[in-house]
Amino acid sequence: MSTSVDALGGSPLANDTLLRALRREPVEHTPVWLMRQAGRYLPEYNATRARAGSFLALARNPELCAEVTLQPLARFPLDAAILFSDILTVPDAMGLGLSFAQGEGPRFAHPLRDEASVRALAAPDLEDLRYVFDAVACIKRALAGRVPLIGFAGSPFTLACYMIEGGGSDDFGRVRRMAYARADLLARIVDINTQAVTAYLDAQVAAGADALMLFDTWGGLLTRSAYERFSLEPMRAILRALRPGRDGRSVPTIVFTKGGGGWLDALASSGASGIGLDWTVDIAQARARFGAVVALQGNLDPLVLTTDPATVVREAGAIVRAAGPGPGHIFNLGHGIVPAADPENVAALVETVHNVSREIHSASRVARLT
Amino acid sequence: MSTSVDALGGSPLANDTLLRALRREPVEHTPVWLMRQAGRYLPEYNATRARAGSFLALARNPELCAEVTLQPLARFPLDAAILFSDILTVPDAMGLGLSFAQGEGPRFAHPLRDEASVRALAAPDLEDLRYVFDAVACIKRALAGRVPLIGFAGSPFTLACYMIEGGGSDDFGRVRRMAYARADLLARIVDINTQAVTAYLDAQVAAGADALMLFDTWGGLLTRSAYERFSLEPMRAILRALRPGRDGRSVPTIVFTKGGGGWLDALASSGASGIGLDWTVDIAQARARFGAVVALQGNLDPLVLTTDPATVVREAGAIVRAAGPGPGHIFNLGHGIVPAADPENVAALVETVHNVSREIHSASRVARLT
Repeated sequence: MSTSVDALGGSPLANDTLLRALRREPVEHTPVWLMRQAGRYLPEYNATRARAGSFLALARNPELCAEVTLQPLARFPLDAAILFSDILTVPDAMGLGLSFAQGEGPRFAHPLRDEASVRALAAPDLEDLRYVFDAVACIKRALAGRVPLIGFAGSPFTLACYMIEGGGSDDFGRVRRMAYARADLLARIVDINTQAVTAYLDAQVAAGADALMLFDTWGGLLTRSAYERFSLEPMRAILRALRPGRDGRSVPTIVFTKGGGGWLDALASSGASGIGLDWTVDIAQARARFGAVVALQGNLDPLVLTTDPATVVREAGAIVRAAGPGPGHIFNLGHGIVPAADPENVAALVETVHNVSREIHSASRVARLT
Repeated sequence: MSTSVDALGGSPLANDTLLRALRREPVEHTPVWLMRQAGRYLPEYNATRARAGSFLALARNPELCAEVTLQPLARFPLDAAILFSDILTVPDAMGLGLSFAQGEGPRFAHPLRDEASVRALAAPDLEDLRYVFDAVACIKRALAGRVPLIGFAGSPFTLACYMIEGGGSDDFGRVRRMAYARADLLARIVDINTQAVTAYLDAQVAAGADALMLFDTWGGLLTRSAYERFSLEPMRAILRALRPGRDGRSVPTIVFTKGGGGWLDALASSGASGIGLDWTVDIAQARARFGAVVALQGNLDPLVLTTDPATVVREAGAIVRAAGPGPGHIFNLGHGIVPAADPENVAALVETVHNVSREIHSASRVARLT
């Protein structure tokens, strides 16, 4: 059944459902993985992080990255692993000086606050990101072909948001202002990020990643025309430029613009195999409009995982049913899992997605045969 | 030309462009007003607020409300005034105990955190909101028929967000959790808010408001089905129930769901005369799809007003041109004006909207005649 081969180990993937769903090929069940599935809702993650000393120390230690990447797979029959890392490794390697203050978000010591700093910006030396590729290889060995490994990067625009603001923000006002008043500077930052992210993702594939995801967390803050120019077009350029995978086929890709529900038409033409949907999108409508051209990933509200198993079963089942039996649905949350999520609810979620989708897919096969 | 009559004073409005645009009747120029046009970007507003002692003291003083409502009209040839008030007056009158801490957002002393508090909730006595209706009457007298006065309320769902969380929030997690796990409680809160807001808006019209707006700031946080149930349907119920205006005609209405760009099809059927668009929506596309059935209001990114006059002229002109010459465009921002907005930029904005739209409308008339 499986045709995906792990060219590093030479072993086929035991479960390649994710890759087949991204290629809109038939599957027996809907694959499910969760954004930030290795994270603070898991006590074992918090223990490893405490042992590492800090989030960055953890992210820079390939063995510990492999450990936390595999933790959720030990608990739940998830259909994919995702590299444990952070999107801001790339601007950090450009010399912006990343840190995470306790209980706060990321901070850059040297944000892009003037023209000179933008002019001085250059794509990083990939050697400075070797720890990420080492983590990919380490995770890949630990997975031993069990499920595919998803590599990822931030979108060029989303990286630019943090690089310009110097950290998180309610509204990324500096970035939006630059998009209007100094579009030339924003274009330069985004161009450099595009080169950097392309090389970064190619290197993740070379190290073992089976699929790739671009996280465009903040593209939804832009006007449609600024989104197309500063976020979508750079992502298209990356997707066009990516090298083939280790098996010679194109690597399955997912793009996710949070708040991009009004722009699915544009995202459907990004060149990605799949589009991530946040929870505001009606997945039945999205499947009806775009399901024939692109896989769709999503889209349970992460807050559902803070309720109770009965609510999780109802809400997750509703999404599987709304997505329907056609090929090309990957179940996920509409945004990253929150620390208050209950692991018991995650177990109920994964079980529901597998069970309900098996029923739907098998009923659909029977209907086609009769 | 004008057919709108101020039934209180018996005098017609000198400028009823806003009302005509909301009814999709021909206009000579695109009317423009700005959400939060009386606000902290104006030094004279800050002076009045300082004199009042606090935001709430200002909002509860009808004479001072009239003073700040008219301040932006003294500077800029805006086509409408909007009542100076706050959406949280209504839950405050329900006994939730509103306060504003210095430099922070709103806080309720008695948020709806348990079933008993939800069961005890009741629509307010309108007498406790008399100060708002007095402000409407006071502003109306001060306007002397110059431009229409817009009254407003928060949407039942957006009010529920603050009532449940007890204040602002990054993600309104308690509210979203309630939508999944205790939909019955959220439905009860929203129902009571629907009754309260309907009566509140009717009373604003009786006191002199010429048009009404529903601010649904947080509806965009919901799934589509939860949005329809908890935000859109209650707004529809209000719009259906509103009494006719003082001239016997239905009062022009605007609904604005921030982050609702993916749901314009649903909003177009809300029963409102106009839909507010945030800046992420392509207004040319929205006009092409919905311009024949509903007026559209928007949608400049408020951050543009923190740039420079040349950028403002370019960006505002682009929106007027994208909206085109057809009837039913009201120019506004895509969200409230920010304190860092430069009044000089606001002047450039209003002038640009008037000039560019006059050209477009007159070219369109010439084209129709020839």
